[in-house]
Amino acid sequence: MRIAFLAFDGVEELDLAGPWELCGSLVDTGVIEKAFVVAEKVQTLTCARGLRMVPHHAFDDCPDFDVLLVPGGPGRRLEVDNPVLVDFVRMRAAQCSSVLSVCTGAFILQKAGLLEGRRATTYWAALEELCALGVEVVEERWVRDGTVWTSSGVSAGMDLMLAFLADALGEDAAANAQFTAEYFPDGKRYGQPELREGAPGYLRDDA
Amino acid sequence: MRIAFLAFDGVEELDLAGPWELCGSLVDTGVIEKAFVVAEKVQTLTCARGLRMVPHHAFDDCPDFDVLLVPGGPGRRLEVDNPVLVDFVRMRAAQCSSVLSVCTGAFILQKAGLLEGRRATTYWAALEELCALGVEVVEERWVRDGTVWTSSGVSAGMDLMLAFLADALGEDAAANAQFTAEYFPDGKRYGQPELREGAPGYLRDDA
Repeated sequence: MRIAFLAFDGVEELDLAGPWELCGSLVDTGVIEKAFVVAEKVQTLTCARGLRMVPHHAFDDCPDFDVLLVPGGPGRRLEVDNPVLVDFVRMRAAQCSSVLSVCTGAFILQKAGLLEGRRATTYWAALEELCALGVEVVEERWVRDGTVWTSSGVSAGMDLMLAFLADALGEDAAANAQFTAEYFPDGKRYGQPELREGAPGYLRDDA
Repeated sequence: MRIAFLAFDGVEELDLAGPWELCGSLVDTGVIEKAFVVAEKVQTLTCARGLRMVPHHAFDDCPDFDVLLVPGGPGRRLEVDNPVLVDFVRMRAAQCSSVLSVCTGAFILQKAGLLEGRRATTYWAALEELCALGVEVVEERWVRDGTVWTSSGVSAGMDLMLAFLADALGEDAAANAQFTAEYFPDGKRYGQPELREGAPGYLRDDA
């Protein structure tokens, strides 16, 4: 399995770095063949919270891959109107066995036509916006519909990636990725998030 | 509050990007004045799992800060023998109200003399190694001893950062950071991590 992580200016750091970290240990042990970051050009990108990242490949020099992960972040608002990026996602996704989005990366999938007739989810603050585009939106932590996996906001990409790895590579692979990243959150909730305006369904149900 | 995130070649991506993400929204709303990445030089760093990052400041051109976060990763093995980095941490930490480490970043704190007489923790695979250096090691998700906060591995930096933000800036700040990053993990555990060799105490206790 070769996984490409899409990047762009204004990408949300953790949308990308969370799933990346979980894949990383499987790359190092050879379970995943390759993981890389691809952007329109190989130049320094400024992420949503200011981190600066340099992609590995440009669109026009991108190796083959089987799985595409599309993160979100405020930059997605510009990128859905960038035909070079949307065409890259559309054309490459057609050759992929699976496509994943994190947070508002779902809007890029939608623009590329990948959410037609599919159930999907996104960041809590963008659920209505995705619904208004005609997508069947569910308020789960993450959702799989066939070959398309979408997650709720930011940190949810980690839960999504583990579920995807368990499905694609087996429970042991997910267990190894989780243990290596010591991803055993303490689960503490500050304030009462389930009572906040915009709290997604999975959070309210879980309260 | 101004927070500096230390970086170096071979830094573990999520050690840095997880806490960074949680601080980010508080920077954008002005609750945190500034957050930046500092490294020995401003040049592209290759992280442990291959992500490429460009720091904002070099050691010799670094603005003042109140809080220092030291991530870990395999690069820490070289950096504990880098006097330029260890001196930077030692000297700047002396001017900080709090110092945080994630994962094996604890070894950099130890080398800088910041763990003397303190309880601390680190990545599950490095607990014994830290113990052998004379540190009083506890197997918690994270531990605070006075002004020094240390976390267990990789993803634990997020739990640490929320606890630190709640303490330093109030429960509301932590709640806002958590909600913005939608950090409500589903808590699923793959395999039986608590039975694995090396499983840290907090994970075994919690099983």
